Amino acid sequence: MRMAVLTSGGDAPGMNAGLRAVVRAGLDRGFDVVGIRRGYAGIFDDGFEPMDRRSIVNIVQRGGTVLGTSRCPRLRTDAGLAEAVQILRRQRIDAMVLIGGDGTFRGGAALEAAGGPATVGVPGTIDNDVPGSETSLGFDTAVNTAVEAIDRIRDTATSHEVLHFVEVMGRHCGAIALAAAVAGGAEAVLVPEAELSDRTLAARIDAEMRAGKRSVIVVLSEGAREGSAEQVAANVAGVLGLEHRLTVLGHIQRGGSPSAADRILGALFGLEAVDAVAEGARGCYIGQRSGAIVRIPYGELDGPPVGLDQRLVRAAHLIS
Amino acid sequence: MRMAVLTSGGDAPGMNAGLRAVVRAGLDRGFDVVGIRRGYAGIFDDGFEPMDRRSIVNIVQRGGTVLGTSRCPRLRTDAGLAEAVQILRRQRIDAMVLIGGDGTFRGGAALEAAGGPATVGVPGTIDNDVPGSETSLGFDTAVNTAVEAIDRIRDTATSHEVLHFVEVMGRHCGAIALAAAVAGGAEAVLVPEAELSDRTLAARIDAEMRAGKRSVIVVLSEGAREGSAEQVAANVAGVLGLEHRLTVLGHIQRGGSPSAADRILGALFGLEAVDAVAEGARGCYIGQRSGAIVRIPYGELDGPPVGLDQRLVRAAHLIS
Amino acid sequence: MRMAVLTSGGDAPGMNAGLRAVVRAGLDRGFDVVGIRRGYAGIFDDGFEPMDRRSIVNIVQRGGTVLGTSRCPRLRTDAGLAEAVQILRRQRIDAMVLIGGDGTFRGGAALEAAGGPATVGVPGTIDNDVPGSETSLGFDTAVNTAVEAIDRIRDTATSHEVLHFVEVMGRHCGAIALAAAVAGGAEAVLVPEAELSDRTLAARIDAEMRAGKRSVIVVLSEGAREGSAEQVAANVAGVLGLEHRLTVLGHIQRGGSPSAADRILGALFGLEAVDAVAEGARGCYIGQRSGAIVRIPYGELDGPPVGLDQRLVRAAHLIS
Amino acid sequence: MRMAVLTSGGDAPGMNAGLRAVVRAGLDRGFDVVGIRRGYAGIFDDGFEPMDRRSIVNIVQRGGTVLGTSRCPRLRTDAGLAEAVQILRRQRIDAMVLIGGDGTFRGGAALEAAGGPATVGVPGTIDNDVPGSETSLGFDTAVNTAVEAIDRIRDTATSHEVLHFVEVMGRHCGAIALAAAVAGGAEAVLVPEAELSDRTLAARIDAEMRAGKRSVIVVLSEGAREGSAEQVAANVAGVLGLEHRLTVLGHIQRGGSPSAADRILGALFGLEAVDAVAEGARGCYIGQRSGAIVRIPYGELDGPPVGLDQRLVRAAHLIS
Repeated sequence: MRMAVLTSGGDAPGMNAGLRAVVRAGLDRGFDVVGIRRGYAGIFDDGFEPMDRRSIVNIVQRGGTVLGTSRCPRLRTDAGLAEAVQILRRQRIDAMVLIGGDGTFRGGAALEAAGGPATVGVPGTIDNDVPGSETSLGFDTAVNTAVEAIDRIRDTATSHEVLHFVEVMGRHCGAIALAAAVAGGAEAVLVPEAELSDRTLAARIDAEMRAGKRSVIVVLSEGAREGSAEQVAANVAGVLGLEHRLTVLGHIQRGGSPSAADRILGALFGLEAVDAVAEGARGCYIGQRSGAIVRIPYGELDGPPVGLDQRLVRAAHLIS
Repeated sequence: MRMAVLTSGGDAPGMNAGLRAVVRAGLDRGFDVVGIRRGYAGIFDDGFEPMDRRSIVNIVQRGGTVLGTSRCPRLRTDAGLAEAVQILRRQRIDAMVLIGGDGTFRGGAALEAAGGPATVGVPGTIDNDVPGSETSLGFDTAVNTAVEAIDRIRDTATSHEVLHFVEVMGRHCGAIALAAAVAGGAEAVLVPEAELSDRTLAARIDAEMRAGKRSVIVVLSEGAREGSAEQVAANVAGVLGLEHRLTVLGHIQRGGSPSAADRILGALFGLEAVDAVAEGARGCYIGQRSGAIVRIPYGELDGPPVGLDQRLVRAAHLIS
Repeated sequence: MRMAVLTSGGDAPGMNAGLRAVVRAGLDRGFDVVGIRRGYAGIFDDGFEPMDRRSIVNIVQRGGTVLGTSRCPRLRTDAGLAEAVQILRRQRIDAMVLIGGDGTFRGGAALEAAGGPATVGVPGTIDNDVPGSETSLGFDTAVNTAVEAIDRIRDTATSHEVLHFVEVMGRHCGAIALAAAVAGGAEAVLVPEAELSDRTLAARIDAEMRAGKRSVIVVLSEGAREGSAEQVAANVAGVLGLEHRLTVLGHIQRGGSPSAADRILGALFGLEAVDAVAEGARGCYIGQRSGAIVRIPYGELDGPPVGLDQRLVRAAHLIS
Repeated sequence: MRMAVLTSGGDAPGMNAGLRAVVRAGLDRGFDVVGIRRGYAGIFDDGFEPMDRRSIVNIVQRGGTVLGTSRCPRLRTDAGLAEAVQILRRQRIDAMVLIGGDGTFRGGAALEAAGGPATVGVPGTIDNDVPGSETSLGFDTAVNTAVEAIDRIRDTATSHEVLHFVEVMGRHCGAIALAAAVAGGAEAVLVPEAELSDRTLAARIDAEMRAGKRSVIVVLSEGAREGSAEQVAANVAGVLGLEHRLTVLGHIQRGGSPSAADRILGALFGLEAVDAVAEGARGCYIGQRSGAIVRIPYGELDGPPVGLDQRLVRAAHLIS
């Protein structure tokens, strides 16, 4: 068995831990293991590289992905797909493990449909928006990063009467914002999944302040609203007649040494992916459901979006 | 409804997050909420203190427990129990939320049996050894602390030929050691639940070094063996003819700002505990099973010990 | 001797360490020590509070300031000054220690001029812009915070071809930006003290990329340019035909547990301030010159601005 | 000019930052730059490796040393020295930059005396025990690591009546212990430079507890006493009739991403070392005096030991 592995899409802490597990488990089964550099693009530009135990020494704690990642529009064309399948055949790849998000898995499905090797996905994205899985590599780390930022702002926020806004990642999915708000004890949270007008938000903040809060921190997803976070912040602060400060966490959330949970998840996802490959599985990705590690058919990628954890929605409402 | 809340046993990061959720959710239901300082000892020495929203401002991020904790041998006597029940009646306590470990919950069971108020437990212990629950407040933080220590040692371990031993907490339960070993990429792990002789361990390390490892880190629970960690380390290093260094993490693992996961768990456990109190539940503790928040009867405290997560045992074996 | 102490201006990590040293050293000399809450505003709104050893337990590690701070326009009027002097007399304050920035010290000078008590300043500001002192409380922590952010972005920046911009604090002073750029290995830095056109910056980045850099991070002070950081980033990226991402660190830099260096500085500054008070000094602030702790007369506040450390300017140029 | 660079002795955070500066500044001057792997041992076992800009990409933030280090008893013999000189001639090395401690610099002096190339030292050791220099690479990071550990223990120490002992590095030099004690607010500190009997220490702790302290943390250097830290801890706790807990930080202090200050120091030391090489200097090491970067002749290595910073001794005494 000759098994390739790549990382694709936006990088996420824990991808290296997942990669390490895939390589070690593959070698343990006697597979030939091949890394592909720069994601799908590496198929076209000779990114193939044999992996042994030395290839993955001392990477479990490192952020980003040592294999690299990139966009690959070429794979979205029929010609590109056909060429990729040919190259993968020439490289004698029997199966591929794809570490990335739903877009990465769709690429795998397309490759399979075009006659390519078996593919098995491993969810690696800080956004935690892979359908059917409760979590993905990088989400726990990203939330911890956002919470640390909120803690620091809280230190200073207790001294002044200023509204603080913290923009976190999540164009279509408020998972990071919601989890960070609950963990950080934020006074309010704005997510793409829920409508909340500036006036309503301002009224809510006003109520908190009347109840004695001396500092107010609002967490918002980058995709929570039309318009920039700065506009939202200025509007809400304007309604209340307060000053405001905006922090934009940006790519800080993608980096950093992965949390213990993300590394352990990388190990479990990686081992399961190699088990799946060994058993001849294809057309599926690994995920977590009710705490268990499971295999999910690519078909579920077209199901309903994940949605927010309603327990956290309640927590944010009750104890912010 | 007049609801008391206390923290008891060894303190754990996330206890404050749990406390905050219990108080906020209780106030939201219109309960009178009373904190008891210094654990069960506070029942006897006038530790009762009314809690309002201000009592829990800015505590979600703080390690330890703002209510304090202590040992209370007095509660283990019949006379002590009877006195405690009387005091709790005088204080008109209808229900108590107990944040702590299995010993804390046994105290609650004894109080109920002696005619005391309804009690509901919330697992708060870094050891993750509460029967029936997959996790407890403080475990995720403690593992992250241990992993950070391993990462730092790895930085320097790559330069020298020295065996590094890291002792983590866990007198009867290897959960921290196992999780930290998988997440830290340790070369071996010693836990109370599994026999592993010094010679076998040395042979295993020898094999790793022959396979090219330049640095070796062994994680061991404080309860992994008779005798001190220093003796184990010296023995194993002696067999291999190598130098060794020992790090003892000790109480570092109990402190620190709680991780995002422990704070969120504190919110979910705390909300469920107050739901339980509101519904008239008693004689149970909150836990996590298959990822869901559940209520577990005190009777399960006498069930079989938790045991190691076999998925992690496999991961430690395959990818160390 | 009855000595008051307050914190004023933007808060900074290490203020609590300074406060602790002032209180402990004052008590050790047998002074009555009084804290004033909310900075100068506390003089007017009854912010006086006796300080003993218990007042400062467990604060050395905390961000922000436990005494609080606020703006106080009232002190800038003659009537306000006269009233403040009267209140301070009524409170029998013999001397005041003022922890803050140059504005705070000017307030002290004005109080002295109006017949108020002796005042001694302690530099506490992340901006490191107090004339005559090499450093101030909070600067080291703020630089570490910015560097941590740069490290995280570097993790992910190594995978993609995107320009990263990180905005740090410093409206008039590029000290944080320069230090963070050198420590973070940033490819370029923009500060208020030096002109650098977008075209020149773009040319420089282009040269770096031709020399093989796969990732580019530019650090800029909030006051580096007219216009927003977003505009600068968009312009430079536009010239180069690359994508860009902006991170705005904002108030994250003001918070967080102080670094060891800031806590030690707090101890040394605080002890020296109390020595000065005991010796009857007035009209001066503590500072660091050539590594030594010194007293600097208020007159130097009107001297030339601090300017950038030219050794770091050279380092940024040579080794970015 | 062909310039070699090596790291030697115990590794220290910031060595990579120093290495990066040496390489970049050397290349900037048009030097041939050669790295030697594994310290002096690499001279004998073919550790020479040309360095270009790519050799040092993304290392500024990494702990340890990418060049590696090892012991080299061979260099301490006359035959070994003569052979090393011959090899260095064959490699046409004109000058060497030596990153390490005083032992490393003595090696350089011996090489020069035996007819080897010019050598210039850069202090890199967490112990901060290089004669004549106020600081060295790694010290600031190690102190921050120790302080973080103390902070965590403080979180839990506030809840129980237990003496906590924290052993930090420093066989002959109490610099880390003293700085960590002041920054961590420890109640007492034991260093090799000062006699302090167990009884005196116990009496002091007793006084602190009578004054109201609820938690006591004692920091001790590994070399503070004959006998193990465990013995000291047990003795002192025994006198007081209290329980005790010991944390041994061990090699945790050598690792970790370097602090901003250590990276900046690496830049300044590295640039000055290359300036010295370019100017034909030899027989000296770089250091910091009164905050300035200076060159110190090897002769000062035989001067009096560094001694503790008396300002910190006073601070530890007054405000612990």
